[in-house]
Amino acid sequence: MAKANPDRALKDLYELREIGAYKTGVHRPTLSPEDMEARQWLANKLQAIGHDTVIDGIANVVGQANAPGPYVLGGSHLESQNHAGWLDGALGVVYALEAARAVAEASDVQGGVDVIAFADEEGHFSGSFLGSKSFTGVLTEENMDAAVDRSGRGTLRHCLAEAGLAGRPRLQMDPNRYAAFFEAHIEQGDRLETAGQSIGIVTSIVAIWQYRITFEGQQNHAGTTTMASRKDAGKAMMNLWHRIEDAFPRIAGPFSVWTVGRVNLEPGGPSIIPGRAEMIFQFRDAEMHTLERMHTCLEQLVTDVAAAGPCTAELEILGQLKPALMAPGPQNAIIEAAETLTPNDYAIMPSGAAHDAQVMAAHIPSAMMFVPSINGISHHWSENTSDEHIKRGAEVYVDAVARVLRAT
Amino acid sequence: MAKANPDRALKDLYELREIGAYKTGVHRPTLSPEDMEARQWLANKLQAIGHDTVIDGIANVVGQANAPGPYVLGGSHLESQNHAGWLDGALGVVYALEAARAVAEASDVQGGVDVIAFADEEGHFSGSFLGSKSFTGVLTEENMDAAVDRSGRGTLRHCLAEAGLAGRPRLQMDPNRYAAFFEAHIEQGDRLETAGQSIGIVTSIVAIWQYRITFEGQQNHAGTTTMASRKDAGKAMMNLWHRIEDAFPRIAGPFSVWTVGRVNLEPGGPSIIPGRAEMIFQFRDAEMHTLERMHTCLEQLVTDVAAAGPCTAELEILGQLKPALMAPGPQNAIIEAAETLTPNDYAIMPSGAAHDAQVMAAHIPSAMMFVPSINGISHHWSENTSDEHIKRGAEVYVDAVARVLRAT
Repeated sequence: MAKANPDRALKDLYELREIGAYKTGVHRPTLSPEDMEARQWLANKLQAIGHDTVIDGIANVVGQANAPGPYVLGGSHLESQNHAGWLDGALGVVYALEAARAVAEASDVQGGVDVIAFADEEGHFSGSFLGSKSFTGVLTEENMDAAVDRSGRGTLRHCLAEAGLAGRPRLQMDPNRYAAFFEAHIEQGDRLETAGQSIGIVTSIVAIWQYRITFEGQQNHAGTTTMASRKDAGKAMMNLWHRIEDAFPRIAGPFSVWTVGRVNLEPGGPSIIPGRAEMIFQFRDAEMHTLERMHTCLEQLVTDVAAAGPCTAELEILGQLKPALMAPGPQNAIIEAAETLTPNDYAIMPSGAAHDAQVMAAHIPSAMMFVPSINGISHHWSENTSDEHIKRGAEVYVDAVARVLRAT
Repeated sequence: MAKANPDRALKDLYELREIGAYKTGVHRPTLSPEDMEARQWLANKLQAIGHDTVIDGIANVVGQANAPGPYVLGGSHLESQNHAGWLDGALGVVYALEAARAVAEASDVQGGVDVIAFADEEGHFSGSFLGSKSFTGVLTEENMDAAVDRSGRGTLRHCLAEAGLAGRPRLQMDPNRYAAFFEAHIEQGDRLETAGQSIGIVTSIVAIWQYRITFEGQQNHAGTTTMASRKDAGKAMMNLWHRIEDAFPRIAGPFSVWTVGRVNLEPGGPSIIPGRAEMIFQFRDAEMHTLERMHTCLEQLVTDVAAAGPCTAELEILGQLKPALMAPGPQNAIIEAAETLTPNDYAIMPSGAAHDAQVMAAHIPSAMMFVPSINGISHHWSENTSDEHIKRGAEVYVDAVARVLRAT
């Protein structure tokens, strides 16, 4: 059976950590020089083991095994959020690289492991999951034209040209080539750590339902306008927010989460009654009926607040995707690998964060595996996972991949 | 008795309205070319009636009557908020100009009316009431050095130099010269209009007590962090806001107003639990004991929210001035003038907005008079007052000034 070399995987991760190092984390925005250096690092590693390797027209790094089939695809992403963690994305890429090496070295496993580092999972550019959508053939040239860097570096086309990728074709996968897709990732929460477990096996990736709620009142002078005659859009927003926090604990599911992450009062002067207010509200769950119940509740609360007056309230749907179910085949392979290598030391759980695996799951059988995040911290340079957990994860990952190849 | 020429005052206001005209309002930020043109227009008018006139080193326009005393000072401001109303400030300056002319023309009134247009009542520059503070001698050179334009035009010193005022001395009043200061203004609220009355006589200018309340929690991923383990600073802010809106109607005074005009969640991403939140909260009242009661209530609510956890909450006082009482002498003169010229057509009321008269009131007996604002609108280009109300106000103002001069 193919076996991981966990120290080799850990060494790779420490090498990657040097590229764009920031404090104990990394700063590798998509298509930045540091990001491109990380992609070239991976391409070199893949070429060194004989994979046919390209960095394609959207900066996906794809390495295809030259061995005869069957094939599994593994990977994640290499760019980071700004000044963020060293393992977010990199872990899943290095595990896939390690699996490719371990399978190539094994005498008792047929087939090969293709490796991919998707572009821009972190969403530096407008749109979402541009890399995996490109690789699965759902990203149009119009989508490419429309993508713009959110921090002002210009269009995706411009940044690709700056990175030396202008004119390169975008690679699309042949779904028939793959028995499964595997993505490993840090948990980004504290469920594994709290339970004292080493491996998480993902059942489904939760869906995010996101809304913009806009309140219109009457902008006015905060000194001369009596309380009775005010139409304070900010206060209307606060009232809805309060009703949400009151109602949702009763109607949500046990694993639901909901968040007001952004609010705005206009014009925003201390002495001006806000004439307009806006909040971005999202909730997440892995169950469609729970999502629908939360949606119905939100609609009713917005209607109630508007009916109570004196401000109008309008609900706009920004996104309502379906939860992405992981495929039983590769999911069970991870469970069996974990049960064999680290018995009773794993949890079966949904993923609260979004991942490229949710895009892949619509095209090929896909599975995800988590390792613990220390204190549950992510999207911050202090994100971390113990070396022991990193190495344990590599062993489980390679074993699971080998199980799928043997069963195919 | 001196009598206003209301058509002459109205004609002046229409002339001023042309300077920096924007839709039906004006755009005359402090020290802009349009503001300086308005100041020069006033200086010319004052010189034409024989007043010793200067535009001083902070752009206060001061015209001193050459007649023998006693003297009254009248005025307001000429600059506007951005794209705001044509009468806010200008009305009080033109009424004072009209009073200076009417008293000079009257054979039966001894004395003269000095006229002032204060600089930057609208607070385009940091600090507050720079013009009246300079004229009353409380503005230091260090305050001058520190003042910066809030919209990025640079320091006050720089903008004064651009306006051609560098090196000019700042004029300070001799408080012994004046029997009283009069400021007329549009109401900026709808109390007169709602009551169907033409004149407001101000008893006191309310004090603004303003606070920054800061909440600290734990920034985290909005998908992977369970509801139970969150420390959502935005939610803590909403909880305080809700408690304020719940408690204040019970403990505030009948004329109290309170406003949350600005809030901020950090980092402000839809998928990030806010780790920090901030709100600017203010309340206003003319009674010290009511202000103190609201302060005590606010302190308790902040303590309660912090004690409830899981976020900290900190209350910072940004400003706690005292209400400015208007002086009985000139205040009664306005009441008598109104009762004579427009019986039962006036209201005695506090001012919810701040004015230069609150600075002047600490140095000389000061009074304020309002005319109605259509729909209570102010700080917007659609601000307006009927010609009839403007003319009626001029008559009452001049009569009140003459009463004080005769009584002195």
